[in-house]
Amino acid sequence: MEEKPRFTGNGVLRLPPGFRFHPTDEELVLQYLKRKVYSSPLPSSIIPEVDLSKYNPWDLPACGGCGCEEVKYFFGLREARNPNRSRRNQAAGSGFWKATGKEKPVTASRCHQVVGMKKVSVFHRGKPPTKTEWIMHEYRLAGPHATTTSDATHGTMAARWDWVVCRVFKKKRTKIEIGEDHMQESSCVTELSDGSGDGEEASSGSMSSTP
Amino acid sequence: MEEKPRFTGNGVLRLPPGFRFHPTDEELVLQYLKRKVYSSPLPSSIIPEVDLSKYNPWDLPACGGCGCEEVKYFFGLREARNPNRSRRNQAAGSGFWKATGKEKPVTASRCHQVVGMKKVSVFHRGKPPTKTEWIMHEYRLAGPHATTTSDATHGTMAARWDWVVCRVFKKKRTKIEIGEDHMQESSCVTELSDGSGDGEEASSGSMSSTP
Repeated sequence: MEEKPRFTGNGVLRLPPGFRFHPTDEELVLQYLKRKVYSSPLPSSIIPEVDLSKYNPWDLPACGGCGCEEVKYFFGLREARNPNRSRRNQAAGSGFWKATGKEKPVTASRCHQVVGMKKVSVFHRGKPPTKTEWIMHEYRLAGPHATTTSDATHGTMAARWDWVVCRVFKKKRTKIEIGEDHMQESSCVTELSDGSGDGEEASSGSMSSTP
Repeated sequence: MEEKPRFTGNGVLRLPPGFRFHPTDEELVLQYLKRKVYSSPLPSSIIPEVDLSKYNPWDLPACGGCGCEEVKYFFGLREARNPNRSRRNQAAGSGFWKATGKEKPVTASRCHQVVGMKKVSVFHRGKPPTKTEWIMHEYRLAGPHATTTSDATHGTMAARWDWVVCRVFKKKRTKIEIGEDHMQESSCVTELSDGSGDGEEASSGSMSSTP
């Protein structure tokens, strides 16, 4: 008795509960960012293009049904006027992203080569600016052309090296530990749904299946 | 240009890179464990039944193609002779699982009711026993019947309250930060695959789609 994956009317495949877009750093860099830079077909349309400067992190558009409402992924372009701005603050919405520490390498698991660089930033806002709980992981391709904006010399393929891929999320608060004495049950959680995965209870992942 | 999800010969659906089984605590308890306890249809066959006592954590069978080779999920039965053993060591393979701290409640996001209890254990082995980097999260249903092994009084449905669902993984080591000077590129990561997701590079998630 299995629930089969089903297509909804708009061509989106609903996945069973627990399945979601949860890529590793390596997958983000090699399977998504690298293809974006080289204009190769992407494995899915899950990651939208976003102008980061226009959004507070909580206003960023949701992915195409990735099942992770709390984590947002998007492609962005590094600013052309200052491509080597790893230490700069980056204006966004009503505040700015401030990098924490140095960029770190992303390595390929098979051959242990560095394939990208990862920068972690914290969103700041207010006067004086104070840090929020919003975090961004920004990935760029590693390589000899990584600080140029385009490249027509890499084989016969023109590449846009200023694409980055980002993961934005709100840091989780530490939960307060309580004893089992505080447990309650209510009707909202004692009913079993019918397994169709249509209920609000199911936070199913989904993905586009159409071109 | 999108890659469509495809069924392989054995009825397994291959998902694009980055999609995997990555359930929240709430999903594990409400969508999987609760259905298991009440013999309701499961949303997918991703979680196998395993006799925990027989396995070292690194020998546990892989899930049914969940795309998370490093995290293993399984259903197990609490030992009948001592159902209330939250503090006991639990023999497994060549060592034992030792609980760390108290159980913690798993709450439903919609109504904030406690729906399960989560226990964290660390695998120990050797003489004298020393802890390893293997961690287990064990979830049981919360409720008035949670310490009995079966229940024929809950409506007309007999339930097996001794089912638990577990997540086992190896704690990640902290990576050493290195500068961009150490970056290298090799042929193993400079080739773009054709987007079909068949290469070893793609760590695609997959799920069973057949009964």
